[in-house]
Amino acid sequence: MPDRAGGRLTFIIGGARSGKSAHAEILATASPSPWAYIATAQAYDDEMRERIALHRSRRGEGWVTVDAPLDLVGAIEALPNHQPVLIDCLTLWLTNHMLAEHDIEAECRRLSDALSRPRGPWFVVSNEVGLGIVPDNALARRFRDAAGRLNQHVAAVADNVLMMVAGLPLKVK
Amino acid sequence: MPDRAGGRLTFIIGGARSGKSAHAEILATASPSPWAYIATAQAYDDEMRERIALHRSRRGEGWVTVDAPLDLVGAIEALPNHQPVLIDCLTLWLTNHMLAEHDIEAECRRLSDALSRPRGPWFVVSNEVGLGIVPDNALARRFRDAAGRLNQHVAAVADNVLMMVAGLPLKVK
Amino acid sequence: MPDRAGGRLTFIIGGARSGKSAHAEILATASPSPWAYIATAQAYDDEMRERIALHRSRRGEGWVTVDAPLDLVGAIEALPNHQPVLIDCLTLWLTNHMLAEHDIEAECRRLSDALSRPRGPWFVVSNEVGLGIVPDNALARRFRDAAGRLNQHVAAVADNVLMMVAGLPLKVK
Repeated sequence: MPDRAGGRLTFIIGGARSGKSAHAEILATASPSPWAYIATAQAYDDEMRERIALHRSRRGEGWVTVDAPLDLVGAIEALPNHQPVLIDCLTLWLTNHMLAEHDIEAECRRLSDALSRPRGPWFVVSNEVGLGIVPDNALARRFRDAAGRLNQHVAAVADNVLMMVAGLPLKVK
Repeated sequence: MPDRAGGRLTFIIGGARSGKSAHAEILATASPSPWAYIATAQAYDDEMRERIALHRSRRGEGWVTVDAPLDLVGAIEALPNHQPVLIDCLTLWLTNHMLAEHDIEAECRRLSDALSRPRGPWFVVSNEVGLGIVPDNALARRFRDAAGRLNQHVAAVADNVLMMVAGLPLKVK
Repeated sequence: MPDRAGGRLTFIIGGARSGKSAHAEILATASPSPWAYIATAQAYDDEMRERIALHRSRRGEGWVTVDAPLDLVGAIEALPNHQPVLIDCLTLWLTNHMLAEHDIEAECRRLSDALSRPRGPWFVVSNEVGLGIVPDNALARRFRDAAGRLNQHVAAVADNVLMMVAGLPLKVK
């Protein structure tokens, strides 16, 4: 059964180390297990491997982890209806598609279509990356623009939007 | 007639691709047309030309566009009283003055004086650029400081201040 | 006597030039003087010297300034109970410890332990630095992560958390 009280789609946005994943886990585990954790991270260096290991060790029993660095829509659709799902995170997924030189706009459209379907409860984590100085290099600017647009699309179809500030959720929608 | 319900001056701040302009257009067009759009952008490269064209194409009938990359105060004062005005955006205007090596403090003071006069409704868009890591180069740090101070001055004289997060307005004042 | 109405520990977070220090001073001076100002800044270049002088000149009579670039816990514990204390700011203190190659995690734990003790009223200022693009260099990334974690720990033990936006406080807790 979906957690109707919490809404179908909760979007958790925030900066680096703002407590997005930890808060999303608290929200997801308020529904009965098993919980699906869709990880978009690719462990291509030690820093990332450490981060993934840290996140994995924090999650305890009751979690099923699915790796989906690129085919996030496929991973979502393969899960049973009404299973609580935590997707962590959209900005890494976007990075993976940009590095693979895929059609970003088409991929983002497919994803926000998939997220607007009536299933869930879903808890989707993303980074806000647009509140610093304009980056020097064009790729970073392109990424920042794409991430901002993707976040807008997901927020538009979300039932709840939370902005994390120093580990605390600020209700935006 | 001014839109008294919405207040005289609404300040819309946010990050890159956070939906500032789109939201400001929705607010401005709640007042009767014609609406003035004061554009501060200068099309000095292709990326910027594309952005300007995109913004222009989104606005439909009923808009009068005024270009004011530097003399924003003059542009404001030339408009009829009580015409709804969207100013997009302060950070580009500040960039133009910095590149021209003008006296930033004096220009910012003139602008916030002009914005504190009892006309409107005005919808003023600006970027928040101070929430990332301290930039390496001194010019970027100087810009970041000037933008932060300008945003504080405008927010102080505004009736409403909205922080855009993923396309959604968060009421700050 | 502590200012019970305002709470024991108020945490003021925000970006560069968002009005954090000025707002913290307003809050602190609502309690009776003398007020302690614990400064963590080290004047190792002209830009920083200017900033320190500006902050110092804004504060008037009634303030006692204590410099604590590294031993912030010692400075806190040396003050009389229930004296209003403004700590400005945690991110500079963290920078100083990183430059000195100290054990950051241990230092942050000591500090958040000290801040969770029942004294005050305390007003603690920190920067949010995690809302821009991932920095290119590893040291900046490490700083960003450490600052984010420190901010979470302090926010967790704080009674009030305010996010400054263009000089205006947004209540987070």
